[in-house]
Amino acid sequence: MTKTNAGRFFEDYTLGEVIRHAVPRTLAEGERALYHALYPQRFALQSSDAFALTCGMDGAPLDDLIVFHTVFGKTVPDVSLNAVANLGYAEGRFLKPVYAGDTLRSESEVIGLKQNSNGKSGVVWVRTTGFDQMDEPVLSYVRWVMVRKRDQAQAAPEAVIPTLEEVVSIDDLAVPEDLTFEHYDFDLAGERHRAADYRIGEIIDHVDGTTIEEAEHMLATRLWQNTAKVHFDATHREDGKRLIYGGHVISLARALSFNGLANAQMIIAINGGAHANPCFAGDTVRAWSEVLDVAQVRPGIAALRLRLVATRGAAGALRGEDGKYLPDVLLDLDYWALMPA
Amino acid sequence: MTKTNAGRFFEDYTLGEVIRHAVPRTLAEGERALYHALYPQRFALQSSDAFALTCGMDGAPLDDLIVFHTVFGKTVPDVSLNAVANLGYAEGRFLKPVYAGDTLRSESEVIGLKQNSNGKSGVVWVRTTGFDQMDEPVLSYVRWVMVRKRDQAQAAPEAVIPTLEEVVSIDDLAVPEDLTFEHYDFDLAGERHRAADYRIGEIIDHVDGTTIEEAEHMLATRLWQNTAKVHFDATHREDGKRLIYGGHVISLARALSFNGLANAQMIIAINGGAHANPCFAGDTVRAWSEVLDVAQVRPGIAALRLRLVATRGAAGALRGEDGKYLPDVLLDLDYWALMPA
Amino acid sequence: MTKTNAGRFFEDYTLGEVIRHAVPRTLAEGERALYHALYPQRFALQSSDAFALTCGMDGAPLDDLIVFHTVFGKTVPDVSLNAVANLGYAEGRFLKPVYAGDTLRSESEVIGLKQNSNGKSGVVWVRTTGFDQMDEPVLSYVRWVMVRKRDQAQAAPEAVIPTLEEVVSIDDLAVPEDLTFEHYDFDLAGERHRAADYRIGEIIDHVDGTTIEEAEHMLATRLWQNTAKVHFDATHREDGKRLIYGGHVISLARALSFNGLANAQMIIAINGGAHANPCFAGDTVRAWSEVLDVAQVRPGIAALRLRLVATRGAAGALRGEDGKYLPDVLLDLDYWALMPA
Repeated sequence: MTKTNAGRFFEDYTLGEVIRHAVPRTLAEGERALYHALYPQRFALQSSDAFALTCGMDGAPLDDLIVFHTVFGKTVPDVSLNAVANLGYAEGRFLKPVYAGDTLRSESEVIGLKQNSNGKSGVVWVRTTGFDQMDEPVLSYVRWVMVRKRDQAQAAPEAVIPTLEEVVSIDDLAVPEDLTFEHYDFDLAGERHRAADYRIGEIIDHVDGTTIEEAEHMLATRLWQNTAKVHFDATHREDGKRLIYGGHVISLARALSFNGLANAQMIIAINGGAHANPCFAGDTVRAWSEVLDVAQVRPGIAALRLRLVATRGAAGALRGEDGKYLPDVLLDLDYWALMPA
Repeated sequence: MTKTNAGRFFEDYTLGEVIRHAVPRTLAEGERALYHALYPQRFALQSSDAFALTCGMDGAPLDDLIVFHTVFGKTVPDVSLNAVANLGYAEGRFLKPVYAGDTLRSESEVIGLKQNSNGKSGVVWVRTTGFDQMDEPVLSYVRWVMVRKRDQAQAAPEAVIPTLEEVVSIDDLAVPEDLTFEHYDFDLAGERHRAADYRIGEIIDHVDGTTIEEAEHMLATRLWQNTAKVHFDATHREDGKRLIYGGHVISLARALSFNGLANAQMIIAINGGAHANPCFAGDTVRAWSEVLDVAQVRPGIAALRLRLVATRGAAGALRGEDGKYLPDVLLDLDYWALMPA
Repeated sequence: MTKTNAGRFFEDYTLGEVIRHAVPRTLAEGERALYHALYPQRFALQSSDAFALTCGMDGAPLDDLIVFHTVFGKTVPDVSLNAVANLGYAEGRFLKPVYAGDTLRSESEVIGLKQNSNGKSGVVWVRTTGFDQMDEPVLSYVRWVMVRKRDQAQAAPEAVIPTLEEVVSIDDLAVPEDLTFEHYDFDLAGERHRAADYRIGEIIDHVDGTTIEEAEHMLATRLWQNTAKVHFDATHREDGKRLIYGGHVISLARALSFNGLANAQMIIAINGGAHANPCFAGDTVRAWSEVLDVAQVRPGIAALRLRLVATRGAAGALRGEDGKYLPDVLLDLDYWALMPA
């Protein structure tokens, strides 16, 4: 009997099946500190208990992307160990703030299956939910991946493609009940701009860049208990490179976006995202944002819909004339953030 | 008067002497998070307070190897600063779970001395005990090292070689009183195999590999306040390489062993160990295990005796025809782990 | 409207102006653990709650330099983003121990301005104060930097050069009220030498060296939310090198100084400091100290005034015949530390 996990193949997924993922994880002050060492994170809400208290929270919540990576990391051994490609995200909603001391675990429901016409692989859609130690959901999102078949001779399952919202509706944002920006201190937050100061279509060049080291992305990826070989084992790819976990690029870009979006305190939903090109150590990553929408969610609190782009190249450049992502573009993320109105 | 510590030489040790080591260290959430960032650690018991509570513990204990490295690190300035070689370990017993907030210190008793026939060095055996802030022992182990003499003209002490058990007896395992696997959740733990599913002689290839970076092993080694120059100073060796602390390899291999031994939740004893070959940054380390014994320790709780091998090479390969470790083998560790029976 | 912070230029500072810096930061166990992983820190007072309790403290305070870097880091976007050079420090006083869970923020008052004769830049003196969540000051220091002018045609302000003490007076040291070395355990602290064992003029070679990695200095510098591009972006300088934050070198040298100054438990004042030469990854940093003064501050407690030098070269060598720092010298720091008398 083989003791090790070879991962699931396309034919191992059944529509409607719920997978309980290993390993639950308690997140605490150490994870917060490491996150702030790994990324140039400066959003005041997650940085300061004192600031968070003035915003109505019970101290600084853990960074929303710590929650995302932790919930996501648990799915890797069951969902993406034999994945050929991570195709997309949708309907990501942060449902409850997570604080130091909370323990997270994940479950995924298979909500779509479609074999590729070549018969060698198929697309699997899962809706993943992260739960805390009280079994309350803290995050939910849909992700779809292309997975190899073990046995090409296996019959294809009936194709079911889930209907997914292109954008999380404002009414579906789970804005924390006690959150308030009434006593918000713009000096301490680092910038003066409220949501009203941003206009749709505005491009923000976040200016700063970070050159990535192998040790850093591996520390991060292990912290989320993401076990995909390709991030850690330099002998795995023929070119001897370690592919950087896409989430590392998300966190890096989000942190860089502080410079120009310092008041976008909280990611509340992820509408979609694409890892446009692979990222490797030695790359210098920059970020720019485009304001896609601005909406009021409650008196004093607005949501900004933002496109966040991580790139090795220039701000504003996204796709070539062929409609494809430019080779320097690493990430194209569409999310809602909360900000003083 | 020289203020700095030049380390002890062979003639500085006296049989029966007890050395109180500096520096006591409080271990907390930060050390846990760093450990989980430095190694691909996924054992549920140390990862999740919630999981640990269902196992009867007062929350997740700190990883057993955090305790080992911390207790060991303190001995370095007094025991191995002038060591030529770390020769072996025996009779390692984890005596009490350590939780975030506990403070550890170490003492070593000199239990054996034997000058080498060349008169230039000798072997020193110490029994090291780690204590917590209540002066209760948390770990005890024997280690022997070859240490240089300062002055070859010094007379040799009477040779005393301690009698050491080859294996820690099952009756001597300090299984935590409240530990229970009655409500054990195999889904959350990550694998289905109980102790009964392993057979003696079984070889488990843990599949995954990690390429080591300089920054990582130095972060780890400093965290344990292990000050041996050779790990940090690239000018120390003629080849300009920094030797990786053997404990880094132990932790890496143990973490990799999750894949196939996910339910081996707790190291409870170390029977012996050899750092077979030096490890350097750039090495890609893999691990395999051999089941050496299985024993019942209490209803529902078994102990697996495991050989854990870290290697740059293939699973299962350990020694050449000459009986010596193969050049790719880095570590050969013999330990007892607790697992649902 | 540009959303990003372009930093201040010389003409943007007004004498007497107080700048409230972003972003407040809660420091906890995670920051402590990272600090001890990034530097070979072994001072017992900051390492062990148990040891600190015997010294009259409420558990181990956070390392004094964690406080310094955190308070300093906040000033970077407002003070040194367009700085040509960090010219000096003076009158640094640690005013209150900081414990895990405290939240720090910074303010700077402009206390001096002097345009350079070339009309292209000027020197700005600020007195920066760090406050905790109770708005009590924890650290105060003066720093002066050379800052570019945005517009050379702008008239120079009236030159005001503050009068600064060359050394913080013994009477101005804010020795924690409850601190006592009455029950001090020299074994656990790691060395036997009291203040009385050091003589003025004594040079201590701290022996150990550390070769610096890119990942390490970036982790550290981000942890202090220091955003200066030059530390992170390999494309920023023409030579493709990332300049290491001067504070990283301070912390490294201070940690190395344990070997010979293990009982210099607490930095209580910084009299002055110069970053003599830039430091880059790959450098092997060593440290040596010179005893500049010894003073009694309270029964049983002495202050040692120390020159701490970080160097790539030999202990004791500081300046060339021309009076300039030798090219290997990285740091020349003048500080007061508390030690058993």
